[in-house]
Amino acid sequence: MESLKIDGDRLWKSLMELARIGATEKGGVKRLALTELDKQGRDLVTSWGRQAGLDVTVDQIGNIFMRRKGRNSLRPPVVSGSHIDTQPTGGKFDGNYGVLAALEVVRTLNDAGIETDAPIEVAIWTNEEGSRFVPVMMGSGVFCGAFSLQHAYEATDIEGKRVRSELEYIGYLGDQTPGDHPIGAYLEAHIEQGPVLEDAEKVIGVVPAVLGLSWYDCEVSGMEAHAGPTPMKLRKDALQVATRIMQEVVEIANRYPPYGRGTVGFVQTFPNSRNVIPGRVNFSVDLRNVSADLLKKMDAELMKFIDSLSSESGLPISLKQVSYYPPCDFHPDCVEAIRGATNALGYSSMDVVSGAGHDAIYAARVAPAGMIFVPCKDGISHNEIEDAQPSHLEAGANVLLHSMLELARR
Amino acid sequence: MESLKIDGDRLWKSLMELARIGATEKGGVKRLALTELDKQGRDLVTSWGRQAGLDVTVDQIGNIFMRRKGRNSLRPPVVSGSHIDTQPTGGKFDGNYGVLAALEVVRTLNDAGIETDAPIEVAIWTNEEGSRFVPVMMGSGVFCGAFSLQHAYEATDIEGKRVRSELEYIGYLGDQTPGDHPIGAYLEAHIEQGPVLEDAEKVIGVVPAVLGLSWYDCEVSGMEAHAGPTPMKLRKDALQVATRIMQEVVEIANRYPPYGRGTVGFVQTFPNSRNVIPGRVNFSVDLRNVSADLLKKMDAELMKFIDSLSSESGLPISLKQVSYYPPCDFHPDCVEAIRGATNALGYSSMDVVSGAGHDAIYAARVAPAGMIFVPCKDGISHNEIEDAQPSHLEAGANVLLHSMLELARR
Repeated sequence: MESLKIDGDRLWKSLMELARIGATEKGGVKRLALTELDKQGRDLVTSWGRQAGLDVTVDQIGNIFMRRKGRNSLRPPVVSGSHIDTQPTGGKFDGNYGVLAALEVVRTLNDAGIETDAPIEVAIWTNEEGSRFVPVMMGSGVFCGAFSLQHAYEATDIEGKRVRSELEYIGYLGDQTPGDHPIGAYLEAHIEQGPVLEDAEKVIGVVPAVLGLSWYDCEVSGMEAHAGPTPMKLRKDALQVATRIMQEVVEIANRYPPYGRGTVGFVQTFPNSRNVIPGRVNFSVDLRNVSADLLKKMDAELMKFIDSLSSESGLPISLKQVSYYPPCDFHPDCVEAIRGATNALGYSSMDVVSGAGHDAIYAARVAPAGMIFVPCKDGISHNEIEDAQPSHLEAGANVLLHSMLELARR
Repeated sequence: MESLKIDGDRLWKSLMELARIGATEKGGVKRLALTELDKQGRDLVTSWGRQAGLDVTVDQIGNIFMRRKGRNSLRPPVVSGSHIDTQPTGGKFDGNYGVLAALEVVRTLNDAGIETDAPIEVAIWTNEEGSRFVPVMMGSGVFCGAFSLQHAYEATDIEGKRVRSELEYIGYLGDQTPGDHPIGAYLEAHIEQGPVLEDAEKVIGVVPAVLGLSWYDCEVSGMEAHAGPTPMKLRKDALQVATRIMQEVVEIANRYPPYGRGTVGFVQTFPNSRNVIPGRVNFSVDLRNVSADLLKKMDAELMKFIDSLSSESGLPISLKQVSYYPPCDFHPDCVEAIRGATNALGYSSMDVVSGAGHDAIYAARVAPAGMIFVPCKDGISHNEIEDAQPSHLEAGANVLLHSMLELARR
């Protein structure tokens, strides 16, 4: 059975054909959710689905499910997919790969005349990127009940257009109630969007979990003063205190390997003038880890450090949590199906946690779920220069094929 | 002779009357160089000078000298003054105090019928602040030959108006060649513009020297990447390297007490997004000290640290010097005259170096010079809330009186 392989060329050609819709001059794709281009992309992929004999249904948030019958129509389907909307300066692979890899699995099963016990479905989730309409992962979020259909409908783009009317306009406002669609298991193939596989020279990333994140806004208040006349010991330099916290954020992450992450990405200094001692510094803190317990410990270390630094320096420091997403473990059945398929196929592999958001995270709230990562060039995504090797994309689709077969067989 | 005192009330009233010209709602003064308000200020002070029997001359850059004859008209005058232009949101004392303290000295000598051996002069230097026309300290700079009259004339304000035509317009384009005006000694009384005297609860600051400064632009180049998917050990976080330099700047200053200063006032992080590891950070470095030798050592320590950090981190770091002003020692005769007068008058005092620029620094290039500091509230200047106590201003003027008498007597 491991001799069954997807057609890598067909997958690559489909990826390149879909990438023509919204193609940018720099080789990327701009295909924002619920635009005319999104419609064209959906039309193309569903036409491919129908050609492959799939039944297409659409729900009220525009999620598309394309179904291949199984022997046992009472079993919930094994679903795989992703999204085809992109960032404004997005790439050809983010999302699109997950949808077309699932379609390639169906085509391969068709060619080989293989009937599965459970049905197989290809899913296209609406507005994963959140570039035009917030919240992100909108389709899968409504599907799993993370927020309401009404909440999603009320989202507006910068021109004031609403999700419901745009769904109607592009012809993808379906009848099915979101979530009223059983899923037996959900798998998603995706480019890694990070540098780990490339760095380790591995082809397949088995994704056991998604990092949780804790976001803070931090403000250090000092005393603005002239750089020349103010001696060092009479200063209240907000930047000198802030930089110690910025370094501690990274130290904390380093104390919680291998999945601890600590980032200060945003910094604002006031008044931000060469010869004035900073009177105030605002900056962001981004802490991540793979378990809620570890993330909580990292949060606690940050707070303790800040308390002690504020006492030591005499400068007020405020720390406000602005976002929290809990970590998500993928289902052992799915993770093991992926690991088993990878090993049987002989691909080099490693476990890679996901640091970014994916539809699979929401899908995991309503069904066993798992993800397959393949390397992307320099770990770059959300960028027109996003790139991936055909052989890696082929390998990922082969792992998806055999994982789905395993799950559809049970 | 120490019983001779200036009239503190008269000095305060003159300060408050001059402060009405360009008064702001918040209690400050906006009297930019070579504007109609500057003309009104010049007219008022020169009218006071003439009432005090002074001969008024103006040079080609608009510097005003008001002369009180001495017994020996062949001796070069003992000059004291400052400027009466202000910052856009300036205070009542910066500059104005130095001019009116010198005028108060003349008035006091007149009242007491004291004739000095050398003539006494009150100087008003053109455009010290540099807010409307660059370079700063323009009048004293041209006077001492730091830059040419032509260079100053070509400076334009944001409306394109030029220095020469504005001088003409306000009626202060004089005939005298700048610098063609001998000075026997130059003293300047000024608010400290720093917190040292207030912190030490001293009334008089004897200023032995002005700090030199070395300004740099520093850039750290890393690799922009997503905060979630990128493990700590695969990061090239420009901010983490930059913050180590920011802290070292302060450490260096702390290793060169008591006059070492180290400040990072300006910081820019790219792309400055919460969930993106900074790919580049640009920031300013401001190092100061009282001797060229110490400043050179501080510069060398910074360069050495950056070289070693760049090797250690593997991140390129560029450091470009953008400004250098050498330290300036005031003349022992002037410093000792000020110290002697302060002690004779019984005021509490300490040595305070000047961290900011003053006309006295340029005057020191052509004559023995010295400065007298008095405390200002919270060390704040260049601000509408700039404030100083009448008793401190009176004390500073008394020190100026007796220092000038000492220098005019020799």
